[in-house]
Amino acid sequence: MDRNRFMQQMEFIRTIDKMKEIGRQTYLADGSRKENDAEHSWHMAVMALLLSEYATQKVDTGKVMKMLLVHDLVEIFAGDSYAYDPKAQASARARELEAADKLYGMLPKEQGSELRALWDEFEAYETPEATFAHTLDNFQPMLLNDASDGKSWREHQVHQESILNRNKKTAEGSEEIWEYMQELILKNRKKGNILD
Amino acid sequence: MDRNRFMQQMEFIRTIDKMKEIGRQTYLADGSRKENDAEHSWHMAVMALLLSEYATQKVDTGKVMKMLLVHDLVEIFAGDSYAYDPKAQASARARELEAADKLYGMLPKEQGSELRALWDEFEAYETPEATFAHTLDNFQPMLLNDASDGKSWREHQVHQESILNRNKKTAEGSEEIWEYMQELILKNRKKGNILD
Repeated sequence: MDRNRFMQQMEFIRTIDKMKEIGRQTYLADGSRKENDAEHSWHMAVMALLLSEYATQKVDTGKVMKMLLVHDLVEIFAGDSYAYDPKAQASARARELEAADKLYGMLPKEQGSELRALWDEFEAYETPEATFAHTLDNFQPMLLNDASDGKSWREHQVHQESILNRNKKTAEGSEEIWEYMQELILKNRKKGNILD
Repeated sequence: MDRNRFMQQMEFIRTIDKMKEIGRQTYLADGSRKENDAEHSWHMAVMALLLSEYATQKVDTGKVMKMLLVHDLVEIFAGDSYAYDPKAQASARARELEAADKLYGMLPKEQGSELRALWDEFEAYETPEATFAHTLDNFQPMLLNDASDGKSWREHQVHQESILNRNKKTAEGSEEIWEYMQELILKNRKKGNILD
């Protein structure tokens, strides 16, 4: 065994434990507390396993899962940028690129490149897998927001326009899922959880 | 779209959100709090992605990941059974089988069977994927226990014998990982975190 290689991997695995402490704005389904990046990533990977049949273009489910498991790792060094905070979103890209260099640079070269390529592909939002992964990345918090009676939307006074804006390409990943998301938006607009 | 099928999947996805509230005995690496099942599952799936090269027998990494993402789902209905609590372990099997019927029965038939088969394979502990998944399932908490200076071991006054007993087959999944685990055991015995 290449001891140095193994120890690099161990250090990476210990470092990503921090994902469990990176808070998101979405509440758990029962509204008891907000979820974190590790929980979000796990939930979506299982969703990929269950919902790939609805992907518009045929996807490699295993690849979508891998992408979703690692797509938020850069937040360990870059922090989370709330989807409906335009200022945070604007500066996010530069911070995340720097974070990706630092994070994936911790791993043995070819393994770091492999994970980095998955993240780059997700960010580029072009391949069938990346497009479907983004659909799930937008769908998962909406499912939870709906389940918690719009708790996070209300707290942030989110307008329908912001949600539609964020989901411009969601239907490209899955028309069925986008159809259901529109139902949830309508339902929560009627309840006043989402503002007009 | 088969609406009924889709709504079964949605209900399942909302139900498994509970994994984020099923506490484990392992502390996060920084010792700040204990981790939950969703976090544990996510962490191991990433570990599978990184460490498959050390599997004794060649494994399908995607399958190991899927197995690890779903292997603890039964705890939603059966609760967590602490590895070093013999009483909890003894009754766990019956509770988990019942929980599996209930949980996987929520999904469309062929999809429920597919996930159930992954869990059954994990439990049977025979295939290369199941053997390696178990190795990671034992390794991940040990890594965290070591990182938190043995916090959970100390709290439960865990003896070396219990750990060795639990890890009888760990080397079958990966000799390299088991070698490293033995180093961690020795280090923590010397510190008094693990009792002789």
